[in-house]
Amino acid sequence: MDELKVFTGNAHPALANEITQYLDTPLGQCEVFQFSNENIFVRILDNVRERDTFIVQPLCSPVSQNLVELLIMIDALKRASAGRITAVIPYYGYGRTDKKDQPRVPITARLVADLLTVAGANRVLTIDLHAAQIQGFFNIPIDELTALYLLSRYFEEKSLNKDLVVVATDIGISKRARDLAALLSAPLAIIEKRRFGNRDQAEMLNVIGEVDKKIALTVDDEIDTAGSLVGVISALEERGVKEIYACCTHPILSGQAAQRIASCNVKEVVVTNTVPITEDKKISKITVLSIAPLVGEAIHRIHTGQSVGALFTQDINRSVQATFEI
Amino acid sequence: MDELKVFTGNAHPALANEITQYLDTPLGQCEVFQFSNENIFVRILDNVRERDTFIVQPLCSPVSQNLVELLIMIDALKRASAGRITAVIPYYGYGRTDKKDQPRVPITARLVADLLTVAGANRVLTIDLHAAQIQGFFNIPIDELTALYLLSRYFEEKSLNKDLVVVATDIGISKRARDLAALLSAPLAIIEKRRFGNRDQAEMLNVIGEVDKKIALTVDDEIDTAGSLVGVISALEERGVKEIYACCTHPILSGQAAQRIASCNVKEVVVTNTVPITEDKKISKITVLSIAPLVGEAIHRIHTGQSVGALFTQDINRSVQATFEI
Amino acid sequence: MDELKVFTGNAHPALANEITQYLDTPLGQCEVFQFSNENIFVRILDNVRERDTFIVQPLCSPVSQNLVELLIMIDALKRASAGRITAVIPYYGYGRTDKKDQPRVPITARLVADLLTVAGANRVLTIDLHAAQIQGFFNIPIDELTALYLLSRYFEEKSLNKDLVVVATDIGISKRARDLAALLSAPLAIIEKRRFGNRDQAEMLNVIGEVDKKIALTVDDEIDTAGSLVGVISALEERGVKEIYACCTHPILSGQAAQRIASCNVKEVVVTNTVPITEDKKISKITVLSIAPLVGEAIHRIHTGQSVGALFTQDINRSVQATFEI
Amino acid sequence: MDELKVFTGNAHPALANEITQYLDTPLGQCEVFQFSNENIFVRILDNVRERDTFIVQPLCSPVSQNLVELLIMIDALKRASAGRITAVIPYYGYGRTDKKDQPRVPITARLVADLLTVAGANRVLTIDLHAAQIQGFFNIPIDELTALYLLSRYFEEKSLNKDLVVVATDIGISKRARDLAALLSAPLAIIEKRRFGNRDQAEMLNVIGEVDKKIALTVDDEIDTAGSLVGVISALEERGVKEIYACCTHPILSGQAAQRIASCNVKEVVVTNTVPITEDKKISKITVLSIAPLVGEAIHRIHTGQSVGALFTQDINRSVQATFEI
Amino acid sequence: MDELKVFTGNAHPALANEITQYLDTPLGQCEVFQFSNENIFVRILDNVRERDTFIVQPLCSPVSQNLVELLIMIDALKRASAGRITAVIPYYGYGRTDKKDQPRVPITARLVADLLTVAGANRVLTIDLHAAQIQGFFNIPIDELTALYLLSRYFEEKSLNKDLVVVATDIGISKRARDLAALLSAPLAIIEKRRFGNRDQAEMLNVIGEVDKKIALTVDDEIDTAGSLVGVISALEERGVKEIYACCTHPILSGQAAQRIASCNVKEVVVTNTVPITEDKKISKITVLSIAPLVGEAIHRIHTGQSVGALFTQDINRSVQATFEI
Amino acid sequence: MDELKVFTGNAHPALANEITQYLDTPLGQCEVFQFSNENIFVRILDNVRERDTFIVQPLCSPVSQNLVELLIMIDALKRASAGRITAVIPYYGYGRTDKKDQPRVPITARLVADLLTVAGANRVLTIDLHAAQIQGFFNIPIDELTALYLLSRYFEEKSLNKDLVVVATDIGISKRARDLAALLSAPLAIIEKRRFGNRDQAEMLNVIGEVDKKIALTVDDEIDTAGSLVGVISALEERGVKEIYACCTHPILSGQAAQRIASCNVKEVVVTNTVPITEDKKISKITVLSIAPLVGEAIHRIHTGQSVGALFTQDINRSVQATFEI
Repeated sequence: MDELKVFTGNAHPALANEITQYLDTPLGQCEVFQFSNENIFVRILDNVRERDTFIVQPLCSPVSQNLVELLIMIDALKRASAGRITAVIPYYGYGRTDKKDQPRVPITARLVADLLTVAGANRVLTIDLHAAQIQGFFNIPIDELTALYLLSRYFEEKSLNKDLVVVATDIGISKRARDLAALLSAPLAIIEKRRFGNRDQAEMLNVIGEVDKKIALTVDDEIDTAGSLVGVISALEERGVKEIYACCTHPILSGQAAQRIASCNVKEVVVTNTVPITEDKKISKITVLSIAPLVGEAIHRIHTGQSVGALFTQDINRSVQATFEI
Repeated sequence: MDELKVFTGNAHPALANEITQYLDTPLGQCEVFQFSNENIFVRILDNVRERDTFIVQPLCSPVSQNLVELLIMIDALKRASAGRITAVIPYYGYGRTDKKDQPRVPITARLVADLLTVAGANRVLTIDLHAAQIQGFFNIPIDELTALYLLSRYFEEKSLNKDLVVVATDIGISKRARDLAALLSAPLAIIEKRRFGNRDQAEMLNVIGEVDKKIALTVDDEIDTAGSLVGVISALEERGVKEIYACCTHPILSGQAAQRIASCNVKEVVVTNTVPITEDKKISKITVLSIAPLVGEAIHRIHTGQSVGALFTQDINRSVQATFEI
Repeated sequence: MDELKVFTGNAHPALANEITQYLDTPLGQCEVFQFSNENIFVRILDNVRERDTFIVQPLCSPVSQNLVELLIMIDALKRASAGRITAVIPYYGYGRTDKKDQPRVPITARLVADLLTVAGANRVLTIDLHAAQIQGFFNIPIDELTALYLLSRYFEEKSLNKDLVVVATDIGISKRARDLAALLSAPLAIIEKRRFGNRDQAEMLNVIGEVDKKIALTVDDEIDTAGSLVGVISALEERGVKEIYACCTHPILSGQAAQRIASCNVKEVVVTNTVPITEDKKISKITVLSIAPLVGEAIHRIHTGQSVGALFTQDINRSVQATFEI
Repeated sequence: MDELKVFTGNAHPALANEITQYLDTPLGQCEVFQFSNENIFVRILDNVRERDTFIVQPLCSPVSQNLVELLIMIDALKRASAGRITAVIPYYGYGRTDKKDQPRVPITARLVADLLTVAGANRVLTIDLHAAQIQGFFNIPIDELTALYLLSRYFEEKSLNKDLVVVATDIGISKRARDLAALLSAPLAIIEKRRFGNRDQAEMLNVIGEVDKKIALTVDDEIDTAGSLVGVISALEERGVKEIYACCTHPILSGQAAQRIASCNVKEVVVTNTVPITEDKKISKITVLSIAPLVGEAIHRIHTGQSVGALFTQDINRSVQATFEI
Repeated sequence: MDELKVFTGNAHPALANEITQYLDTPLGQCEVFQFSNENIFVRILDNVRERDTFIVQPLCSPVSQNLVELLIMIDALKRASAGRITAVIPYYGYGRTDKKDQPRVPITARLVADLLTVAGANRVLTIDLHAAQIQGFFNIPIDELTALYLLSRYFEEKSLNKDLVVVATDIGISKRARDLAALLSAPLAIIEKRRFGNRDQAEMLNVIGEVDKKIALTVDDEIDTAGSLVGVISALEERGVKEIYACCTHPILSGQAAQRIASCNVKEVVVTNTVPITEDKKISKITVLSIAPLVGEAIHRIHTGQSVGALFTQDINRSVQATFEI
Repeated sequence: MDELKVFTGNAHPALANEITQYLDTPLGQCEVFQFSNENIFVRILDNVRERDTFIVQPLCSPVSQNLVELLIMIDALKRASAGRITAVIPYYGYGRTDKKDQPRVPITARLVADLLTVAGANRVLTIDLHAAQIQGFFNIPIDELTALYLLSRYFEEKSLNKDLVVVATDIGISKRARDLAALLSAPLAIIEKRRFGNRDQAEMLNVIGEVDKKIALTVDDEIDTAGSLVGVISALEERGVKEIYACCTHPILSGQAAQRIASCNVKEVVVTNTVPITEDKKISKITVLSIAPLVGEAIHRIHTGQSVGALFTQDINRSVQATFEI
């Protein structure tokens, strides 16, 4: 268990590289590819007996592919007698299916936890789950990091504070929005979607809280199609907001998301690199902050038995970032 | 599995009796008592081989006692070859410890799920969990009912709608408050607690949303010491609210709760009987609605293989209540 | 458990339809789709409490997608209190990764068995596994059917017997080829691939057994790219074979498979519909036999507690087919 | 795993302190308290990643509370990535419910073993189980120590040997009584309770063996209400015993136990501190021997991989005690 | 689950036949044999899908063989989709290895429970375990019957009562001996073995209780080599006993047991047929009572969901026997 | 975990001794014996807390005895707090029962894997499984070594290559035969058994491939009664083979095997010592190669965290053997 080995699947090798760079260790050697019949195959090239191994693999697009790839990599490490296997999942997909809010639906976020465990993962490291309760879906230890300090520091440096209001784009995200508001000493507003009339699709966005003449900073855990974001922005504009920034941890940006962001009235969208952003989505309005130092530091602490909880304070977060910038 | 048997521990026999009355079946015979050394002992007196058994036991005060009693009853039924064991837990205690929001704390809501499962429960029936995600802490089927229709119907009949605003007493409850607001076609406001200054204890209650000159109906999943409720009420009064009602599913009412409610400026507090309310807490301001018909109907549907999901519509809920009132 | 419900994912609805037609029961109602972020979502529309449920889903292309879809459907049925869940997997993908034949590789066929079990499957029904030992990867009951009787009957009717030789296209398939040869009272030949020289890629195909002036019928469990098949055919031609037929259970036909078959010297390729064959692959040389009656009959027997083992005799197989043709 | 951390719940902090004093290590920092709704909350304050952790918590009064507290502490340590968690349970409550000796009763001693295991305990250290077979209720390693050497040494030093007879207060304890008799080279007598007549409650105590004109030393694993002890003493007196001592490992002393002991004809009752004895029960007739050195030495040996079995010899036991007295 | 199927391994087919005769059902058809390489093979010939199956197999000589045979039969039934599998184990071997009474020994009685469970047994039916706590080694339901009523009735009919004393042949069996004594309204005496001097082997038998001029009935759970029995008998003779009977449930009778019984001073040894008694051991002093009606009745009650606990009363036991004798 | 301890049961102590000699470590001290009632008892005499332990025990005759002994030894080590337990099973019995090839039969090879796992084995080390897929029956890490290099080297040194043909004695062994043929650069032939006519027992051996005037080397994983071998030899002779050698890994040699080999027309039978060969079977035609160095080296690598996969190359194998010969 003295030696640390970090492997990557095909989901986000760039992030794995940044992490191993932070850790000053070479990326573990392995082959992860598909046969012509689409069967994923994995071959670990390094000896991993009794080693402390980590696999970096966000559950981003192609989601099923990346999930199955991760499970197979875990199985390969387990059967290769790895000493400990930590699944590093910067973006935990399926987080939104975390409860039965209608009859006869799955709880896929729990299913994924069970799949990871039965495959042989010994621990999980992740960032900004859709709901913190997903931690409880696991019985193996899980460390959930947050990009909130990273994002708040970025906006602190912009010195927008005086007029700033943090806006939860949905009731569901209001708790995390409150945390960001507290970090920025800004008030909070919340967007509530409500269906009305007898047409099922008619939906109204209520803005709860004061936003008139303010600079709004919307926050969400992920931006998917950016459809909601565009709706929120126009609701805020109608309510007299003078400038709008948006931020989130996970930039899924599926479908027309980048175009929508480009053409709507948001000034800047600040995200992290928990998932890869393809070249065509790298538009000027989108700023990407790297979470590699945070993840790298957490891996280092897990490997050496130091407190990961200590990372949840502004000061250490700041120094983690500083270290990496040099 | 043709025969249905409902048992009760010592947590809330009155509710169990109401439920068996709804089901028109006698309560199962068993002894559940403590020896002088405080060891809980259970003896099932009815033959339960291959029977479909249910144990009614909310995790209310004395909490540890009631939890251990429930686990032992499950073990007794399992070893007595019961065909199926459903733990009916109208109030799922420990629901607030559902995530690690600080380092090195337990996730007790998950632990309780595992304890129930390892003891031998085959399914769970519960009402208004603190967070719906707790469903995912179980891998055995769980049916979560809601008292929201019961509560909304009660207020509908009061015809307060025009000036009504539903108020979430905390960010964490805002989703359920929104659901109640939607049922009552009322707008939503949210109370945000925030610590400020460098004194750790100083806390400010922000009211997000418009409440001036309105009739406020606060909603929470449970009322414990009523301390927060009192704070919320005074914050609402400062913001010009003209009348205040409160409602919740689980009336824990620990410590000085009843006195606080009696002396503060709330007009009525509407609760259900998921947990027992001792005589000294039955003050005139507190209205108790019975969830026995809802639970009884759910047990009936589970036993006969009918859809429980169908209970999540106003109409069936209404008829369930109607049936029982006759 | 009196009522039977057959559901289908998106892998092969046509087969599920044929099966329910055989069973004379409507297909179970459910929605299985993807959100914009690629998260698969499932909603079972029929009440399935205590019902005997079956999900038809071969692990064909898109493999990862279909596997994850199947797992989520199982989870949905489990949480919806289905009485029993049988995963009907006509083609069990990942069958070729059934052992560690080199260091640090996974045993994905076992992993998939564990994933199905942890998701909540109670039994599995499948056809012609790559290795029969994969049965032992499960601890839940598994019924493995075979298409061999279907295929042998087809060739029996062609009356090629006198000059026929059955050819295993690989050492690994020789056991099943022997079974087909025995059913057709034909001799057996086996193709052995061997690498030689010090160039890693140089490969020689040895034909073991007598094939000169014979009609060869090659057999394999699946045809993937048809690359091996083409090689085998040319090796057989060099050895004086006068006519070549091919058969397999699972027509994967990835990449250029259909074109290769069209242009090579095989007279006919007989397959079953365990996996869907897209229109562009339906070339005249490929004959597709339906396994729906066989699967349907097995589901019927599982549901009614009759012997499935009895299906492993020519006579019942014949009558199963007959029943359906009418 | 190099570092040892001993934590205590609220059951018996005094014992935990004595143990850490023996080990010359500070007690681990943690908070274990109840919210107003009686929910127990635990916060481990020391970093425990990869540490070798021990929790000292006898299952004494309040029993349910202490059990649930222990389970939650284990969960907290598990989720805090402790390297190994040993539950140190000097008194294993519920030991008397270790079999079904009547229909439809639980086997709570097994249930507790399962609860500890599912919560995440990796091993258990305990003292004088009600039945040694309870070891087999666990599949995690369990070390059972005995206070018998401690008790026998105490009586050896009194030099009562010549006239001494060891008396099992019940058939069930006769094996352990025999062990004590052997250590003291004294003969054995056994008390048999028998119901007679057709009145269910009439009970007669038979003294099997010779006790006339002897000094009797009664032995039991625990003294609860002291009701049986009082009965045994009067039965022995009737049979001509001249002086009576009593001993046990676990002084539960519930209800009127201390008063009963004070007023009955026993000369001295020797017990250990596996459970706390409240001030009002510390009467002059009761002598308390400390098991802290024994437990401390066992923890030391578990931590350093030395044999714990070696503790089961008089000599090492003697030196363990000697070490601590200095 | 409507149909009952009773199978037998090779351990005790005669008992299985008596049981099926009581149940008026044919014995299930299966082959259980050994290949030349000693691998045991099992083939169930009857269709058992969804049937309620029972396997009769005591763990008698050859013990390992019979245990492995039982495990393989369970696996065969599980994989053949049996609805429920009850292992009927009239004699549960390895019962004496039920605790660690010295360092680094196994707890084989627990191991066997786990082996049965992992193989797929759903329940266990057994008779007179060496220690009742072994019930708690299982988490599947277990019914433990007792032959005590059968034995006590036999001696009741001999009308020896007036002078009778029941003698536990060892401290460990004293509880069961007390139960027999109570059934026969006789007093109890107990034999205590004790080593003395510094020679390890020197052992003295103390008789605790009064036996002079009495008729002694010794009781044990099993008689193995009869070595202890012979020792006990001579100790009782020295103490003036006038006549000696012996009884036990399980007549293991290994080695010279039958000869020893024949030549020692015991009048009659009464046993049951939980294990087979070979012809050479059927000496006139040994009386064998059949437990087949008791086991048959228990199987009938398990199958039909009636109380098995009711069998633990003299009256029903009597009628069970009566039924069969006709 | 620094210290390595190798224990042996009664199956093959000679091999265990050779292995510890290779490892230059004394054999672990333990007692493994049977009581008069055939109950196997184990007592580990060395302290094994946190040690890295290995048990050498092939599943050879007496098979059930050796299996149960192995399981009990694992349980003893687990309960004695061993750090890691590796079951070293040079011959994995029951390998031929690895699938259901007829209705209602067990998959005993999987059952054995589950028994080992539930008993507490952490890993398995074995040699030449009957089917490589048996690896997938385990979820604990398993290392499968092969004796193929050892055997091929032996025949290489005989320089028979030019006329050599490797013959698979059965379709089922054809893959391993191909591997041996490749190592020896020899062609391959395969024996196919086929039943014909309507007499069930009539069986014909077809030789597929060219063998006329060649030196045949037959290969199988085990030789049991040698009945098949004799049949194969006479079939080869009929086809004009001039000289016949045989080899296998596991020399079971049950019944008349040695006599059959002595009297048939095979020149030499080369085997390894994975199972013991009793003196009466040590005939001059049988050559035994030791696998102790291979197993010893694998244990060394497992213990020190080196690659075991590296052993699967001719060169290291060669040096392993060389080391030991000195």
